[in-house]
Amino acid sequence: MSAIALTELADRFGLEVHGDGALTIVGVGTLESAQPDQLSFLANPKYRGQLAQTAAAAVVAAAEAVVDARCAVLVSRNPYADFARIAALFEPRPARPPGIHPSAVIDVDAKVDASAHVGALVTIAAGASVGAGAVIGPHCCIGEDCHVGPGAHLVARVTLVTRVRIGARVLIHPGAVIGADGFGLAMDRGQWLKVPQLGGVIIGDDCEIGANTTIDRGALGDTVLEEDVRLDNQIQIAHNVRIGAHSAMAGCSAVAGSARIGRYCLIGGGAGVLGHLELCDKVTITAMSLVTHSIREPGEYSSGTPLMDNRSWRRSAVRFKQLDELARQGSTKKRDS
Amino acid sequence: MSAIALTELADRFGLEVHGDGALTIVGVGTLESAQPDQLSFLANPKYRGQLAQTAAAAVVAAAEAVVDARCAVLVSRNPYADFARIAALFEPRPARPPGIHPSAVIDVDAKVDASAHVGALVTIAAGASVGAGAVIGPHCCIGEDCHVGPGAHLVARVTLVTRVRIGARVLIHPGAVIGADGFGLAMDRGQWLKVPQLGGVIIGDDCEIGANTTIDRGALGDTVLEEDVRLDNQIQIAHNVRIGAHSAMAGCSAVAGSARIGRYCLIGGGAGVLGHLELCDKVTITAMSLVTHSIREPGEYSSGTPLMDNRSWRRSAVRFKQLDELARQGSTKKRDS
Amino acid sequence: MSAIALTELADRFGLEVHGDGALTIVGVGTLESAQPDQLSFLANPKYRGQLAQTAAAAVVAAAEAVVDARCAVLVSRNPYADFARIAALFEPRPARPPGIHPSAVIDVDAKVDASAHVGALVTIAAGASVGAGAVIGPHCCIGEDCHVGPGAHLVARVTLVTRVRIGARVLIHPGAVIGADGFGLAMDRGQWLKVPQLGGVIIGDDCEIGANTTIDRGALGDTVLEEDVRLDNQIQIAHNVRIGAHSAMAGCSAVAGSARIGRYCLIGGGAGVLGHLELCDKVTITAMSLVTHSIREPGEYSSGTPLMDNRSWRRSAVRFKQLDELARQGSTKKRDS
Repeated sequence: MSAIALTELADRFGLEVHGDGALTIVGVGTLESAQPDQLSFLANPKYRGQLAQTAAAAVVAAAEAVVDARCAVLVSRNPYADFARIAALFEPRPARPPGIHPSAVIDVDAKVDASAHVGALVTIAAGASVGAGAVIGPHCCIGEDCHVGPGAHLVARVTLVTRVRIGARVLIHPGAVIGADGFGLAMDRGQWLKVPQLGGVIIGDDCEIGANTTIDRGALGDTVLEEDVRLDNQIQIAHNVRIGAHSAMAGCSAVAGSARIGRYCLIGGGAGVLGHLELCDKVTITAMSLVTHSIREPGEYSSGTPLMDNRSWRRSAVRFKQLDELARQGSTKKRDS
Repeated sequence: MSAIALTELADRFGLEVHGDGALTIVGVGTLESAQPDQLSFLANPKYRGQLAQTAAAAVVAAAEAVVDARCAVLVSRNPYADFARIAALFEPRPARPPGIHPSAVIDVDAKVDASAHVGALVTIAAGASVGAGAVIGPHCCIGEDCHVGPGAHLVARVTLVTRVRIGARVLIHPGAVIGADGFGLAMDRGQWLKVPQLGGVIIGDDCEIGANTTIDRGALGDTVLEEDVRLDNQIQIAHNVRIGAHSAMAGCSAVAGSARIGRYCLIGGGAGVLGHLELCDKVTITAMSLVTHSIREPGEYSSGTPLMDNRSWRRSAVRFKQLDELARQGSTKKRDS
Repeated sequence: MSAIALTELADRFGLEVHGDGALTIVGVGTLESAQPDQLSFLANPKYRGQLAQTAAAAVVAAAEAVVDARCAVLVSRNPYADFARIAALFEPRPARPPGIHPSAVIDVDAKVDASAHVGALVTIAAGASVGAGAVIGPHCCIGEDCHVGPGAHLVARVTLVTRVRIGARVLIHPGAVIGADGFGLAMDRGQWLKVPQLGGVIIGDDCEIGANTTIDRGALGDTVLEEDVRLDNQIQIAHNVRIGAHSAMAGCSAVAGSARIGRYCLIGGGAGVLGHLELCDKVTITAMSLVTHSIREPGEYSSGTPLMDNRSWRRSAVRFKQLDELARQGSTKKRDS
């Protein structure tokens, strides 16, 4: 996309133009950085003050922002979503034509749809398959009995280990490892004995999986991401976890074995969920909190302490160790008084 | 393994059959999911109630569970371990025959045992070696002076950087990076100066190393995992750490430079150990705790605060900042009273 | 380097010899482990007691340590830095001669300087470039519009996804993923909509990036590491973050989207910084702390609670939940008394 008029954008995405619809834009930017031929957006009212200063040609914003804007406005009920749709028009998309790069190593017992793209130095093992229109980027490794759905996109260097089923239109970033052994051990006469991991992984349609994220396959039964689950980078999903549709997890969070996360949950960065717990739908866990019990009520949950300068923190930390004693003294005094 | 009679399993693993030993099983499952031709197990008494409902043909369980079971029982003193041994019979094991895939790039100064398997697109550098019966999966990268012991298995896309010695029967999952530079820096006139990392990594026999786990090589001297150490995914082991035999670490945990962990320790998910500390044998650290001092007594250790609904948590968090003041007020009153 | 005399080291690095300058050393070691033909160092006064026992031929140390040493001393104002420079002489450096390995897959529209080394099974996409003297180790993946500066070293299996600019002399360890999509999502009628990530990543000169670390590209605008930033393993840097020159982050730490870290900051292992925050120069965050607000004063900051035996910890943890109530009781009593 080189340039597009505001009226055309309004037509295409069902928006209303306020201002000069004949203006053409050639790109997108933030309110602060946008050039006079670019489109910006206002989604967070916190940045409303920037509307008057922006150099952007136009902004996508809610109706009530029109009064503040000095530029044209594409009026939207969901400015961030509509901006995302418009921005996608300006995203460079390198060609990934159908066909298999000659350096790829494809087992004779693997099936690759003729419309799929398989990049350089990819390996695809026996019993694996790649669906219509899928893109398998360079250095990907698709193991035995792994199946990539139609329109899925493995960007580069993704590893599917074994018994992994990837849904339609799933996007997986480099370094992700899906379907490795779950961490199953039995202690036997002073030695660890490995518990075989016989299950698989099922990734629903429209999921996204971040760079260097790991999703282990089930011990007995499968690890499951329902549709439209969004995982950021460096997330660890243990064996037999189930994550409900439309839930999203931020970077470095982790879910231990057999835990079940509901639908529309939001898990903050670095947060952890212990094994075998259940979280109902619409639970939000704040960053770096540890979930130590099941949650049956939607809402926001936290653990941890606030950031303090180290000297003050040390004083509070010492008192934390004495808390029970301090509380007992308080109660005693209360009883005494 | 397609089907096996209970009597044969009992013979092979030294168990006692209670019920019809002629029954054959064709697979394994949980108490909840097992089919009528599958074997299940009861290891955790918490699930004892499921014994009466399971559709499984038989279960591996302790003697005292026999009364609750409606199906046949393979009586075991360690049901989880014996179940693991039986389950392994049903694990699909793709063929990894001896030989080197033609796409692998092996330096003329590397040694690969004739009984080893080297998969597609593997690189093996000068001065490296691969022992008898070892399996080097696709996309693995074995650097200079790295040695893979007999029967070791690098599943796929494992990187051994330099001066790494992998023991016998070690299992390493995709994305693991072993032997990268430790993080050694000296500040010198306002710039960081890199401290050379001249040591190596020694991984003892029978260790397991999870997907995307990193183990740095020593600065001076080696980073060491003793035998039978089990590391889950996304663990970070810094330079010159030593981990004692039979210790296990859950996902996303980390150990900083030169720390020493004892034998039979259990480190919970996301937990951290600061540098230069020592943990004695049989220490358990709960999930997401931070070890800030050496530990000389076996036992369980924790840090952090419990999960709360966010509103309540905010109230406690504010008070945490005032803790020292609150405690002083308490003492003052005590002295006053 | 096979052997070198102390006088030569003193000359080369501007040090003063105390003791027999004709002594030659053949390697380096710690005070505890050094052999009689090796050089050691004393940087941390805590280890001063080891000076009298070391078997080392000589040590690099500050002037005031000379009285304690029984061996020769190379007197330095910054012993750790000078030791690092000397140790580098003894580091084995495998040859990485200019040229492209025949198994590498280089797009016709990529530019590789004739003095660069490109290892086995590397892919370089259209529009990418590799500068003079750069080393691209085996299995690296360099995507469209990624540029590697002169003298940079990608050790092995590094992925540059798209729109990444790597400065001069940058060192990147295996498994790092730079330039993957930032985690941008808009909720739209119950479904997640992907927000295009149109920006790039700029890595300044002399940075170091650890194994399996991920740095996402910007949504609008770039993610930036200024010069001489040092990142350990498994760090997550989200889109549009900016990290100031000479800052260092320890393993498993993470910075959320659009946060800005100042110069000469030190971020401890496993620590987190929330999105859109700003940290001024010279801020230190201790391990596993969570930064929840911007920081405008240099200094050390912490969150969390101290490690305790689990039984005591449980008592304090219960009281943490009651903290507000306990504090209110205290105030009431105060008012009453």
